[in-house]
Amino acid sequence: MISFTCDYIEGAHPEILKRLVETNMTQVEGYGEDAFCESARSRIRQATGCPDADVFFLVGGTQTNSTVIDAVLRRYEGVVAVETGHIAVHESGAVEYGGHKVITLPNHLGKMDAAELHEYLEHFHGDATWPHMVFPGMVYISFPTEYGTIYSLDELKAIKGICEQFEIPLFIDGARLGYGLASPAADVDLKTLATLCDVFYIGGTKVGALCGEAVVFPKGNSPRQFFTIIKQHGALLAKGRLLGLQFDTLFTNNLYMNIARHAIDMAMELKNVFASKGFEFYIDSPTNQQFPILTQEQMDALEGYVAFEVWDKLPDGRFVTRFATSWATPIENIDVLAGLL
Amino acid sequence: MISFTCDYIEGAHPEILKRLVETNMTQVEGYGEDAFCESARSRIRQATGCPDADVFFLVGGTQTNSTVIDAVLRRYEGVVAVETGHIAVHESGAVEYGGHKVITLPNHLGKMDAAELHEYLEHFHGDATWPHMVFPGMVYISFPTEYGTIYSLDELKAIKGICEQFEIPLFIDGARLGYGLASPAADVDLKTLATLCDVFYIGGTKVGALCGEAVVFPKGNSPRQFFTIIKQHGALLAKGRLLGLQFDTLFTNNLYMNIARHAIDMAMELKNVFASKGFEFYIDSPTNQQFPILTQEQMDALEGYVAFEVWDKLPDGRFVTRFATSWATPIENIDVLAGLL
Amino acid sequence: MISFTCDYIEGAHPEILKRLVETNMTQVEGYGEDAFCESARSRIRQATGCPDADVFFLVGGTQTNSTVIDAVLRRYEGVVAVETGHIAVHESGAVEYGGHKVITLPNHLGKMDAAELHEYLEHFHGDATWPHMVFPGMVYISFPTEYGTIYSLDELKAIKGICEQFEIPLFIDGARLGYGLASPAADVDLKTLATLCDVFYIGGTKVGALCGEAVVFPKGNSPRQFFTIIKQHGALLAKGRLLGLQFDTLFTNNLYMNIARHAIDMAMELKNVFASKGFEFYIDSPTNQQFPILTQEQMDALEGYVAFEVWDKLPDGRFVTRFATSWATPIENIDVLAGLL
Amino acid sequence: MISFTCDYIEGAHPEILKRLVETNMTQVEGYGEDAFCESARSRIRQATGCPDADVFFLVGGTQTNSTVIDAVLRRYEGVVAVETGHIAVHESGAVEYGGHKVITLPNHLGKMDAAELHEYLEHFHGDATWPHMVFPGMVYISFPTEYGTIYSLDELKAIKGICEQFEIPLFIDGARLGYGLASPAADVDLKTLATLCDVFYIGGTKVGALCGEAVVFPKGNSPRQFFTIIKQHGALLAKGRLLGLQFDTLFTNNLYMNIARHAIDMAMELKNVFASKGFEFYIDSPTNQQFPILTQEQMDALEGYVAFEVWDKLPDGRFVTRFATSWATPIENIDVLAGLL
Repeated sequence: MISFTCDYIEGAHPEILKRLVETNMTQVEGYGEDAFCESARSRIRQATGCPDADVFFLVGGTQTNSTVIDAVLRRYEGVVAVETGHIAVHESGAVEYGGHKVITLPNHLGKMDAAELHEYLEHFHGDATWPHMVFPGMVYISFPTEYGTIYSLDELKAIKGICEQFEIPLFIDGARLGYGLASPAADVDLKTLATLCDVFYIGGTKVGALCGEAVVFPKGNSPRQFFTIIKQHGALLAKGRLLGLQFDTLFTNNLYMNIARHAIDMAMELKNVFASKGFEFYIDSPTNQQFPILTQEQMDALEGYVAFEVWDKLPDGRFVTRFATSWATPIENIDVLAGLL
Repeated sequence: MISFTCDYIEGAHPEILKRLVETNMTQVEGYGEDAFCESARSRIRQATGCPDADVFFLVGGTQTNSTVIDAVLRRYEGVVAVETGHIAVHESGAVEYGGHKVITLPNHLGKMDAAELHEYLEHFHGDATWPHMVFPGMVYISFPTEYGTIYSLDELKAIKGICEQFEIPLFIDGARLGYGLASPAADVDLKTLATLCDVFYIGGTKVGALCGEAVVFPKGNSPRQFFTIIKQHGALLAKGRLLGLQFDTLFTNNLYMNIARHAIDMAMELKNVFASKGFEFYIDSPTNQQFPILTQEQMDALEGYVAFEVWDKLPDGRFVTRFATSWATPIENIDVLAGLL
Repeated sequence: MISFTCDYIEGAHPEILKRLVETNMTQVEGYGEDAFCESARSRIRQATGCPDADVFFLVGGTQTNSTVIDAVLRRYEGVVAVETGHIAVHESGAVEYGGHKVITLPNHLGKMDAAELHEYLEHFHGDATWPHMVFPGMVYISFPTEYGTIYSLDELKAIKGICEQFEIPLFIDGARLGYGLASPAADVDLKTLATLCDVFYIGGTKVGALCGEAVVFPKGNSPRQFFTIIKQHGALLAKGRLLGLQFDTLFTNNLYMNIARHAIDMAMELKNVFASKGFEFYIDSPTNQQFPILTQEQMDALEGYVAFEVWDKLPDGRFVTRFATSWATPIENIDVLAGLL
Repeated sequence: MISFTCDYIEGAHPEILKRLVETNMTQVEGYGEDAFCESARSRIRQATGCPDADVFFLVGGTQTNSTVIDAVLRRYEGVVAVETGHIAVHESGAVEYGGHKVITLPNHLGKMDAAELHEYLEHFHGDATWPHMVFPGMVYISFPTEYGTIYSLDELKAIKGICEQFEIPLFIDGARLGYGLASPAADVDLKTLATLCDVFYIGGTKVGALCGEAVVFPKGNSPRQFFTIIKQHGALLAKGRLLGLQFDTLFTNNLYMNIARHAIDMAMELKNVFASKGFEFYIDSPTNQQFPILTQEQMDALEGYVAFEVWDKLPDGRFVTRFATSWATPIENIDVLAGLL
């Protein structure tokens, strides 16, 4: 059986394993102070066009979100996200565990609307009861979103502009960043994105690594003593080399973007397969997650051969499904799927 | 230069890397639901003699400590540890971040004294002001301790007995568990230790793995919805396979104990080298951390050739140093050191 | 100038002050262990028809909500409320400060809909990703709501039934409880309400006291060591007599309900005044908060004579206002208002 | 029976009750925005010699400590206190509930030693592992201490000097401030004390009020949005008038210091009574808490007539007791005691 259930079902890109093996017995410092981490930081500064960036390596997405958010927010502040944002739904309350509210706005296929953000912020400060409310202290968006959609350059600029107007930092969750940037629909690249937020992370776990997220504060604007905060949140890896070496590899010879592009190519093939056979889509996703609508019979036909996720049941009895490709998806898997539909 | 600074300065045991490479493209479930994790859990249940154990894989030590402690404690409870306990000193307040106090008792070369524990608990409940104080809701000890010392079977039984008398769970931090069990001074084995506590973990990071700690609730006594609590603490790895496969390897053909024994053999060699040359030790450690006392001149002689940690300066001007061996230490490194002393 | 801005703009019912003066120099125990508290607890047990109730006195509403919620919830659980619930909007994130998410449902004039609650809970447990989500561990409703509306007996039974089905405790915020129970629209009394929830509180601050909320666990079902939890939350008053004596007074000779009824009588007079002059209402409130809609000119006419709150601006340019009566509102104030409209 | 068990066993100074009665029906703003609070703030600014001070009124001591500490500390910081400090022992972990560690130093009859503080801070920053430790972000002392002792001007200057050297704010818990300043042993007054710390509070609960602590940031240096933080901690009183009016009364005609002095006069009488009859003292306390050592027989003789607290049992079988006087203690009570000894 082949699986499209998610983008973290295989291990790591072989180049990463190769380098892990090669460097295995080299003795290095712990806690991210090693040469692999330093090299990775340097390559990321270059790739993002941010020579002064502070770069930290954390292990996973929920951990990164809750650590960054807790570090940036003041005690009485919350983080603004759309109601479908990962932090609002699928992180078991990790942000609240740190003492902060996730303030939710409506989602539009997973995206935040700049005008709605503006209206909320303006209303908040205009409300006589605001000192009794949770302050918006950060805006959180994901790129791509949980629905596979991406923000356009104009949309990002609009959100960033509002954040600046209200002096609120903007945080971009890039757990699948590569898959967003590699999308044919994307009109931003990594360097541009880095200018449009105050902190973001480059997702490794879903884009070729065994684990690891690279947090980037583009202007060297990391919170005071962020290293200690990482440790306090249980997010500091003793063998930081594991993270440094992976990102060093991913940012050598453009590997990160290359494998992301492969995943997108496969996603577009998969999309074509469904489209050519007359399937409808729940969302017209330009990234590695595709959401074709299947009947029970169509799902039955795939059972035992192809695995995927069922997201929702529609009123007409059909199902919204999710098929994800990744850096590891071979074209053969798409062919197998095509043969079964 | 060779280094004895810590036991996490190399990568992973080669057998682990070999299996990572072999299984890399196998598609598996995320979040620890994969076959590697299941197999590892099964092997650990066997090795610990606990067929009903709940076993969870977390990434690092501080994370494991704070997640387990927060999950087991009630809201108004704190955890009792010695003042030198890792959670009391070197975890950046991760336990307090979760809202719990670390209640400290005196340390005796890093160990808790059963009589002092008893006295504290008895006094606590006898104190008229106890409802205004933090309740002792868990006892935390480390095996081996931060000073490399280990508890004897009798000492463990005494502490466990007191915990049972006061109905308080006992948690053993086993970040270096293998190195404790493999010590010539140890009179407990893994199966016995599992009967003497309510939860413990088997440290992987410092004993052959790239990362990973296996938390064991010996009687299937894990806290309600512990999976969700792990996620909430940012401690759930998407590619759980990375942890499962490592522990599966470590618990195949007794690898974990074999490599731990090697580290201890090397530590005893190192100890002999120092002793034979007339060095004193700050602590007579039976495990992989050794604490010889060096003069400034002796430290200078090693500079550039052998790295180690300086722990403290003694009133007489000499220094307490720490030399750690690990599963990866070759006998050649001991020889180099011997040649320089 | 007279004010209808809120129901906490005067001091305490004179009978309370009289007894404070009378008992002032009596020496009593601290922390709620005094005879006044004991007597008040006894009277509340009788008034609620709950001879086994655990009764605790806290100081204010936000404090009571966050302490009770944090004490009842397990670590990984959140509290379900409507989006307009006090805990969701106007408590500065006090629930999140305790580490818990407020999970929001739609509001219907401030009320929770039983069917929507059922749908949410059913969907939650049916969702494959629920272990990654915040568990619903308590349902919170307010009686009356923040919009002055009240639940009918049938509505309360429906919500309680669902809570029982899903084994989730129901918490009723009674900051204005007297004003809800005294409403002509109410078909529940205090004894019935006590059977329809797992914990509730009787608001004192807004109903005749200087401060104080009486938390009632009807079946003696208070959380383990709740006293300590109160202290931990900074909610334990050293001179507990101040709270005990006030509630003892309020529950002597039915004072609490009598003064609540007075407030409702005044509210209905006020409502009639507005209605008789052709004003529309934003909400048809049956309790002490009334929401007439005024034009700018009508508001200007009151300026300097009558104070009230402006809640919102309608698309047609008119304003939703709030006029609150209380135990202290004299009929003369209504007459003054009537003369100005 | 008469009681010396504590200094919060009576109600409030009669002048306070008188003014509560007089102002009871005056309609005022909530949440501390009323004229009574404003007047009290003004009087406190004058009494402390701090025209720019930010003054806030909270309800109780534990609440004030945990709110101020949480507001001032950064996320990764803890508060330094002596091991007998109230926050370290008798607040049920309220500081840890807010996510912060209480870092403890030895106590000397309840006091912190400046040299030990200096040594700790110097060692902390000199320790190579400090980024893995909890940062000292505030120093907390109490005046008088939990043992009734007070710091001299020189001692306060020394501690403040060290705090400035390490750029750490100093917080003085003044739950019994009046009793400290009124002590014959005190060589600081309120104005001087205000220059020697960054934040302190003037305890009302134990010095004449029903409840209430006035937090003073002498240089207008209150944390950003402290009002909201107070609310978030459940510490904001809706009827702030209750606090404002009490402090306004206490700071009119020097009432606060006058009644504090009375308590001290009574304490010195009580001390003389014990001393003249040959009793030893556990501590030579210069404030309103006295610690005579009694035998079992001597305690028995008082039983049923005079209440007091037993603090500890000495090795020789005698008991350390605590007798507290307050603003409310009549000389007759001392006479009764004298007659029984």
